Amino acid sequence: MARSNLLYAHSGGVTAVINATASAVIGAARAHPERIGKVLAAHRGILGVLAEDLIETAALDEAALQRLSLRPGGVFGSCRFDLPQTATADGRRVMDRLFEVFAAHDIGHFIYNGGNGSMDVVGRLRDAAQQRGYPLVCIGAPKTVDNDIVGTDCCPGFGSAAKYLATSMLEAGLDIRSMAGSRGSVFVMEVMGRNTGWLAAATALAAGGDADAPPHIVLVPEAGFDEEVFLAEVRRVTERLGYCTITVAEGIRRADGSPIVEKSREGGYVQLGGAGSAIARMIHERLGYKFHWAIPDYLQRAGGHWLSAVDREQALAVGRAAVEMALDGRNGCFPAIRRLGEAPYRWEVGTEDAAAIANLERTLPVAFMRTDGLHVTAAARDYIRPLIEGEVPQPTAGGLPDYGALALQPVARRLPPWQA
Amino acid sequence: MARSNLLYAHSGGVTAVINATASAVIGAARAHPERIGKVLAAHRGILGVLAEDLIETAALDEAALQRLSLRPGGVFGSCRFDLPQTATADGRRVMDRLFEVFAAHDIGHFIYNGGNGSMDVVGRLRDAAQQRGYPLVCIGAPKTVDNDIVGTDCCPGFGSAAKYLATSMLEAGLDIRSMAGSRGSVFVMEVMGRNTGWLAAATALAAGGDADAPPHIVLVPEAGFDEEVFLAEVRRVTERLGYCTITVAEGIRRADGSPIVEKSREGGYVQLGGAGSAIARMIHERLGYKFHWAIPDYLQRAGGHWLSAVDREQALAVGRAAVEMALDGRNGCFPAIRRLGEAPYRWEVGTEDAAAIANLERTLPVAFMRTDGLHVTAAARDYIRPLIEGEVPQPTAGGLPDYGALALQPVARRLPPWQA
Repeated sequence: MARSNLLYAHSGGVTAVINATASAVIGAARAHPERIGKVLAAHRGILGVLAEDLIETAALDEAALQRLSLRPGGVFGSCRFDLPQTATADGRRVMDRLFEVFAAHDIGHFIYNGGNGSMDVVGRLRDAAQQRGYPLVCIGAPKTVDNDIVGTDCCPGFGSAAKYLATSMLEAGLDIRSMAGSRGSVFVMEVMGRNTGWLAAATALAAGGDADAPPHIVLVPEAGFDEEVFLAEVRRVTERLGYCTITVAEGIRRADGSPIVEKSREGGYVQLGGAGSAIARMIHERLGYKFHWAIPDYLQRAGGHWLSAVDREQALAVGRAAVEMALDGRNGCFPAIRRLGEAPYRWEVGTEDAAAIANLERTLPVAFMRTDGLHVTAAARDYIRPLIEGEVPQPTAGGLPDYGALALQPVARRLPPWQA
Repeated sequence: MARSNLLYAHSGGVTAVINATASAVIGAARAHPERIGKVLAAHRGILGVLAEDLIETAALDEAALQRLSLRPGGVFGSCRFDLPQTATADGRRVMDRLFEVFAAHDIGHFIYNGGNGSMDVVGRLRDAAQQRGYPLVCIGAPKTVDNDIVGTDCCPGFGSAAKYLATSMLEAGLDIRSMAGSRGSVFVMEVMGRNTGWLAAATALAAGGDADAPPHIVLVPEAGFDEEVFLAEVRRVTERLGYCTITVAEGIRRADGSPIVEKSREGGYVQLGGAGSAIARMIHERLGYKFHWAIPDYLQRAGGHWLSAVDREQALAVGRAAVEMALDGRNGCFPAIRRLGEAPYRWEVGTEDAAAIANLERTLPVAFMRTDGLHVTAAARDYIRPLIEGEVPQPTAGGLPDYGALALQPVARRLPPWQA
């Protein structure tokens, strides 16, 4: 087999463990010098490939790779960029450029670390390479806090975000319970997840199975939001306990599909805030309770100080497996997590076809949602629980995680500039 | 000396280490059975005293006290309640009731764990006891994440919230830097602190002294907000780095004292969001940058999984000292943290008069703010740095902190019900 270089790229929103996958890809690729020459990374994802903005990873020694594997965010930079359809003029122009860059840098292996959209790109790059007769093996590596990739039992990045949010609900719940008063106190936490309720469901782990423990209500997009049913439950919980804690997935919708948006005091609907603030104000205006709301936003997907050990292990495993799959010529595939058993939780890495699941979306099964649409079931908790297990000690300096500084070395350009 | 019971109460917003102070009070009081009989706690603070809603702490064994010392929130419940002025009819009625409850339960020592307002109550209770000839020693114990109590170098609760927020800015900064694009990305984090910028200033620890590292801008109430100066700096940072991270204290004001509120699309000012969302939207509308914003809300003061070891040590120390001061008859005083040295940081617990500092507010000194009002200085970082030092291992179960369940045993009532 010919020897060629490997290119790695982040894609889409980053996670607390995407760098773990990157470090595993680099480490595994280095173990095969007979097949893989240089290990390069794209700066800012696919945009960096187009711009021929590449990074030489040889400068990262073993200690630096270890540090990288513990650092949240995407060290090489990422982007949200939809590859235009291949059949269009713009699509051909973009595809031509990608292969010019691959050829200029002797890229024979491309590992694309992303979500559903990225799996589509993996499939299209495989097809384009075959049509062009260019020797490229293109492999996906799953990553998303949203846990919405089809074909894998779970997605690296989800477990750590889930652990962060369940811990946050547990802790904020202890706080608001302290402050619960006769006039009722409500706490709303808005979480990520796009069109799915996986991250919202994870907060239910804070309660174990205790119906009186936070979160008392979990709103997920899959359930459909009914204002009257919801407010009745908020009132019931608050009258019984003196407080009510609520997880709101950012993507919740009414049964007719309309989003929940901020209602201005004038009565018109104006999109002034996310679902969390809209829900908090709805409760205040309709029930008169005091409220607090939290939006962890990027904090929930960057919590390197509180990683799930299982999640990080899986992020490392898919990185290693992606390199093995590239060497095995499993073009257009991605490593997927397969659940083998519970108690103890056991898993392995399997192989899935990227094009087959591209742009699909894995939503919460009906069995994971309570029939009233206001909480998740024990089945949901049983599924998520093992994914947040285990802690990962982080080196610290001055009371903060010591993520270190990583010097990234650019690769000299060989092509004319790209005109985006 | 006569033997009598001790009553402990939380007051105001709780913290991640207020239970540490509570556990230290209980432990220290038990060490003096010759002077202190029962150790009781008020349920929901001073409202619990009025309602004669008291808790017997004898059921908490040593293991339970240790667990309590690691648990965020206020386990006995707290409240925000302003004691009416003593000279008013309502004030006399309330004060009469408090002393009826004290007498009914043979309370000779009262330890009130709160902020500036609570120190006022400590002084007033001391005065009232002396006027009534009731043998009560009343001691404050400082607590607030806002760090705004006068007379103490810092406040238990602040260090852990500061550590949480500095870590959050560090981690979210790594995330947004990954996603920085040509159109500019802005991240705004709104933090607590009431009228002071101590917590906002703490996020500057994330940057060390690196002017290019998050947070790029820190807005504190003490500086006065100037929209044009601020937006010019946001533009400058974003054009240089591709992204800009901003900490916004909840209490920021314009130089004329007006608050920063959400501006509706109609142009009128309507209070629809906090300072953080208002700032984020201002940037989007004026500069066109994409934005994300986070509101950690209760999460920042309940982060038991990521405590500052120094903060917890000080929370324990003021609890122990408050009991010693009660036994020494230092009526109307509170234990204060005194800074003895830097590198290594050294501190001790001194004694301050509660009435002398009651209702005052400790704000950021001018030397802690950069002259343009858009950041804090090295002096601010040097002051805060030792307060976030050290980590506290938490027992975990199933990937979450194991804060345990504490059975609280109510004290039988001896008085007629209180009519609030």
